[in-house]
Amino acid sequence: MSGDLAIRLQAKIDGKTKPPGALGELEALALKIGLIQQTLTPSLHQPTLVVFAGDHGIAAEGVSAFPAEVTAQMVANFAAGGAAVNVFARSNGLALKIVDAGVAADLSAHAPLIHRKIRPGTSNSLHGPAMTAQEAHAALAAGAAIIDELHGDGSNVVGLGEMGIANTSAAAMIMALLLELPVEQCTGAGTGVTDGALARKIDVLTRAVARAHQAMAGRPGLMLAQDTLTQGALTQRVLEEVGGFEIGMMAGAMARAAHHRMVILIDGFIATAALLLAKTMDASVLECCVFCHQSDERGHRLMLEHLDAPPLLKLGMRLGEGTGAALAFPLIRSAVAFLNEMASFEEAGISG
Amino acid sequence: MSGDLAIRLQAKIDGKTKPPGALGELEALALKIGLIQQTLTPSLHQPTLVVFAGDHGIAAEGVSAFPAEVTAQMVANFAAGGAAVNVFARSNGLALKIVDAGVAADLSAHAPLIHRKIRPGTSNSLHGPAMTAQEAHAALAAGAAIIDELHGDGSNVVGLGEMGIANTSAAAMIMALLLELPVEQCTGAGTGVTDGALARKIDVLTRAVARAHQAMAGRPGLMLAQDTLTQGALTQRVLEEVGGFEIGMMAGAMARAAHHRMVILIDGFIATAALLLAKTMDASVLECCVFCHQSDERGHRLMLEHLDAPPLLKLGMRLGEGTGAALAFPLIRSAVAFLNEMASFEEAGISG
Repeated sequence: MSGDLAIRLQAKIDGKTKPPGALGELEALALKIGLIQQTLTPSLHQPTLVVFAGDHGIAAEGVSAFPAEVTAQMVANFAAGGAAVNVFARSNGLALKIVDAGVAADLSAHAPLIHRKIRPGTSNSLHGPAMTAQEAHAALAAGAAIIDELHGDGSNVVGLGEMGIANTSAAAMIMALLLELPVEQCTGAGTGVTDGALARKIDVLTRAVARAHQAMAGRPGLMLAQDTLTQGALTQRVLEEVGGFEIGMMAGAMARAAHHRMVILIDGFIATAALLLAKTMDASVLECCVFCHQSDERGHRLMLEHLDAPPLLKLGMRLGEGTGAALAFPLIRSAVAFLNEMASFEEAGISG
Repeated sequence: MSGDLAIRLQAKIDGKTKPPGALGELEALALKIGLIQQTLTPSLHQPTLVVFAGDHGIAAEGVSAFPAEVTAQMVANFAAGGAAVNVFARSNGLALKIVDAGVAADLSAHAPLIHRKIRPGTSNSLHGPAMTAQEAHAALAAGAAIIDELHGDGSNVVGLGEMGIANTSAAAMIMALLLELPVEQCTGAGTGVTDGALARKIDVLTRAVARAHQAMAGRPGLMLAQDTLTQGALTQRVLEEVGGFEIGMMAGAMARAAHHRMVILIDGFIATAALLLAKTMDASVLECCVFCHQSDERGHRLMLEHLDAPPLLKLGMRLGEGTGAALAFPLIRSAVAFLNEMASFEEAGISG
């Protein structure tokens, strides 16, 4: 059925009034969205960006260029409509929802937020697990529940964004554990640490990853994927040891969105780390993902190569928030539009 | 004045609620548009794509994968709203105008067209000039007049697209003459010639360029830029020998749009060949150009490198029509929006 649909979608694309292949990656994108929705005439309804915010105990180790209170300040900025993701969502026709996943401040006064705070910030993963097993499970479930509600309201395309000072550190550790790579290949400047501070960040994360390895009943260097843990349990253990509340909710949201066959817009480094977690639970989530941009954050290119996922945009950005997903969305809309609206050679009476 | 404005624009960009440089190429784009419009608060009005169509005598040499009648058939497709550029202009909020610059068919029945036919197709430039000096001048002037009208109606951002079977051949010859490169570095598959047909295309264009060189009172290999021709006269002579009516109108349009300080969206290989002509008349046209995408057509990467112009998109497309300009336009709108709408650290009360 799906194989047959792929052939019929490709024939529809090849019949459009253009030389074969002349729309490049937009043709692959149109094919993919047809396959996600299992139709020759896909459509996009209520495109929505959901931005999850959370704080990180490991920020106390000086791994970020910004102080931890910036997480709450930026959430207030989102609520007021003044951040980059607000502007890009408005400019590109996406609705925007902001979720307090675990910010270390009382945000109850901000009415437009979705309040799902697990706890005011994770614990410092250098010294122990970032969260309990119950908290990891609650984060995954909260992300899934938000998607169920969106899907129930009629949305079939969702982007996941994030805000959390020090969350490039959490993402780098998830990457190191799941892809079994040295921490220094996974660690970049984040919002802007350089030189000495970057060396210190790598040192802190190397020690935290070693601790997590041992806590996960293995030894440093153990091949986690060959562990006795089931893949779903592996996701939850990695999230527990080195993750973040916002990252857990993103992973739960991605897995659930794939269950509903929604188009999933994958943003930058942290969103892709959340996808590594979601994919560990269920590899079929990749069928629904559109890779929107490649971040300048060091590890993102490696992540995308591992996923064999060339990005639509490479604009040298490194902001997160879902900004890359918002900027790429018009390309996705255009891909669906050409599949539905362009004339075929036959319809236009053009010589082949 | 402009230097001072650049400093104030950069300070405004750096003061936005994001780490310095975190929006990558969008920051350079916002700066550029501020400088084009000479303001800290740029705005985009009535964004418009103008697509120029024309036929080419050299098509008789079998340099294209499609027969020459496809030019007129595609113009009918544009008029009916069924081509890729129609879909992408609608999807991305641009108005679309189609100009008959010199199609080899009677298109007077198509009411939505702008009728500026110079002649029904150029002459075969393998055997003599593609057009007369009067025709070259008329094409440049017609493009300029269309821009004057658009600008008078309040538009300040324009993309130039084209349609014309065999116009990658004309563009390749313009590139070879103006950049003084061997024809084989300038010649690609166009709409899809391969292997033997590509070798034949290169052979035909090499002979046509040699003929043009001699006709321009030089010898093959003469450095044209050091010729006694003035730069404006050089543009017109190259257009006359190897150009196309649609390419001439695009060059005239670009030069005139820069005169009005409009934002100019540069599309693919043929549009960039027109820009090489416009730049030869007046190098300051580059100040107003945004390079929208890099075509898969072989010579385009070299052209962009020559212009030191990294493109916004690389999507493996090779269609022309202005499709790359239409797809990149939302990025330009987003760049202007963040400059105007994003909160500063000061406004949002965020710790720096």
